[in-house]
Amino acid sequence: MAPWDDLSLDETALLQAIFWSEGSSRLALSDRLAFSKSKTNSLIAGLLDVGLLEESGLRSSTGGRRPETLRLSPGLGVLVGVDLGATSLDVAVLTPDLGVLARHSEAADVRAGPTVVLARLRGLLRQLLAQCGKTARDVIAVGLGVPGPVDFDSAQLVNPPLMPGWDSFSIRDYLSEEFHAPVFVDNDVNLMALGELWRLQGGLQNFLVIKVGTGIGCGIVCHGEVYRGANGSAGDVGHICVDLDGPRCHCGNAGCVEAMAAAPAIVRQATQAVDRGESPWLADRLREQGVITPEDVGQASRHGDAAANRILQEAGGLIGRMLASVVNFFNPSHVFIGGGLTRTGPLLLAAVRQSVYQRSLALSTRHLEIQYTPLAERAGMVGAGVLAMQEALRHRKLAA
Amino acid sequence: MAPWDDLSLDETALLQAIFWSEGSSRLALSDRLAFSKSKTNSLIAGLLDVGLLEESGLRSSTGGRRPETLRLSPGLGVLVGVDLGATSLDVAVLTPDLGVLARHSEAADVRAGPTVVLARLRGLLRQLLAQCGKTARDVIAVGLGVPGPVDFDSAQLVNPPLMPGWDSFSIRDYLSEEFHAPVFVDNDVNLMALGELWRLQGGLQNFLVIKVGTGIGCGIVCHGEVYRGANGSAGDVGHICVDLDGPRCHCGNAGCVEAMAAAPAIVRQATQAVDRGESPWLADRLREQGVITPEDVGQASRHGDAAANRILQEAGGLIGRMLASVVNFFNPSHVFIGGGLTRTGPLLLAAVRQSVYQRSLALSTRHLEIQYTPLAERAGMVGAGVLAMQEALRHRKLAA
Repeated sequence: MAPWDDLSLDETALLQAIFWSEGSSRLALSDRLAFSKSKTNSLIAGLLDVGLLEESGLRSSTGGRRPETLRLSPGLGVLVGVDLGATSLDVAVLTPDLGVLARHSEAADVRAGPTVVLARLRGLLRQLLAQCGKTARDVIAVGLGVPGPVDFDSAQLVNPPLMPGWDSFSIRDYLSEEFHAPVFVDNDVNLMALGELWRLQGGLQNFLVIKVGTGIGCGIVCHGEVYRGANGSAGDVGHICVDLDGPRCHCGNAGCVEAMAAAPAIVRQATQAVDRGESPWLADRLREQGVITPEDVGQASRHGDAAANRILQEAGGLIGRMLASVVNFFNPSHVFIGGGLTRTGPLLLAAVRQSVYQRSLALSTRHLEIQYTPLAERAGMVGAGVLAMQEALRHRKLAA
Repeated sequence: MAPWDDLSLDETALLQAIFWSEGSSRLALSDRLAFSKSKTNSLIAGLLDVGLLEESGLRSSTGGRRPETLRLSPGLGVLVGVDLGATSLDVAVLTPDLGVLARHSEAADVRAGPTVVLARLRGLLRQLLAQCGKTARDVIAVGLGVPGPVDFDSAQLVNPPLMPGWDSFSIRDYLSEEFHAPVFVDNDVNLMALGELWRLQGGLQNFLVIKVGTGIGCGIVCHGEVYRGANGSAGDVGHICVDLDGPRCHCGNAGCVEAMAAAPAIVRQATQAVDRGESPWLADRLREQGVITPEDVGQASRHGDAAANRILQEAGGLIGRMLASVVNFFNPSHVFIGGGLTRTGPLLLAAVRQSVYQRSLALSTRHLEIQYTPLAERAGMVGAGVLAMQEALRHRKLAA
């Protein structure tokens, strides 16, 4: 039995507020929850007593007595976060306030199918938990991000183009054999958005996270919540057309931004530039390694290689053209760009910005900020942890 | 003093629930608000006593005693709804549950500027209120829709392309000289979305309303609420690019869907078809009337005129191309299309559908419905009434 099985709705609301605002003082919590000060104090005292909260030291104050701040206690248990990419598996055991207790990353191939990948995941989790002196019974919840469209309620992938064998496979049932804790699954870029939302502690209500890697996807935060769409496929921007005369995409249409500006397109164009003798720098790299990666193109660009610069500028321009449509429609305050292609450096971002500001309406872009994701490569894992904790608390609330 | 100035938060929540669900039974209201039955009954008895609610007869039931249903009483006061178009002014006095007490429509030219148009509006409202035996003091709130981007909090237009003289003019201050009631202003297509949301009584959470008339705009409902974006310009889809080689738009970019598929483009193409001798039907119409309207093109199409069919199919195809991007991004359950161009008939809708289903991803369109707005020309006025009542109730709640 989890240590919180007897919590009241008010206590759950308090834990949620503390989870979403690091280092909260009692006064701030009472304001935020619209509870009286005495009610807030008595709830907190009870939760401190049973070891679900702890005091985390003093917060700087503008004067008077410095207010003590609170955080979720390790006594609640641990969270499991999993960030499954098309070619990588990243696993962590986290404290309730998302501190990392143990972490492991390795290469993986999702095309091997769910039983192979998830069996490996179970083994890794057993090891990582043991490493922290924990067992499966200490796990509050599991949050897992996958590179494909997810039906959130059933925690199943739906027609995932990169993961054909996973269609409708019950990840939740499989992992439940190991954990009694609830398992939550979401699309990787939705989790990046959730991670940034948590980092911002509710400071932004309407923003986008674009992931540019093997594919191109978008996480949407609307009215302060991740928006998944009517069927869970919101943010599927990779197949927005940016050139009617563009190359054919695997989806059947022509000129999809993903087919023209994601990592495989960058690599293809770089290889073509070498074939045409346009880039001595990339030719050297291809000779040494046998392949060219997007990172190589980024490095070539930083060395002033003209072909690499052109490739990255064109890709950024096309991503910006897609984003201009999305910005006109959604009017976000911020667009955060993440994923592997951001490792190519600042030129891509500059080209995206130029293209968006040129094509979007002035009113939509007047206060628009476009930048690389502040959480960078950690966004997906942070999001997996946030998903686990948020849904575990929400679940409690619904079950009560 | 409004008759509701002494309402409690619980009473306000009850009035809101009744406004958003026509003909609610006591049991349904107690479920919806998570109030006990006895609390719900006692709140209702109090509101019936002071004349703010009334019983609206019996609702069909599956068995047992038929439950009585409730609605907002005319004793609350009246709402004023205003739907200001680029070339029209539509004004109504409404009951709290949006029944029409008096209504007037006339041609107007927003380019005449705010003082001319709003002075006429004030005169009309005085007449309409007198006609219903009401005065300005009976008005609960005013809801006003305008054809341009609005900063919702200040109730001011922001750089409106069709209404240059209205930029930053305080519509609220101007109308407050006449009414003590609060004045709320929003973009016309946001109000169409709000109107459909009210009609659906919360049955759909995530949908779009596209208005195709002089321009092209989009109202967005996300998580059951109208979404206005970070700066109030969300839904500005008219300048999404659908053809890189398309004609130059007044915004400075090329191939904006509004420049290629809204009413002025249809009229221009129809006139060109006449010049080229491609449409005897439209040539007759031009000779008789001196101009061609989009409705003429619709009629020509229904008479089998090939040029008219081509023009409408192309326009629908371009609107659908824009919509395909938006559907991939937002994954709505429904897209409702309204505005003057829908009067051209069913061919435009068929072409929009074909284009969206061809270009959007299967997951986004599997359950997607695209249809003309069920409220049709009434959507804007209903939305203005909903805005007035919703914000008046919300305002109460915040002020308490």
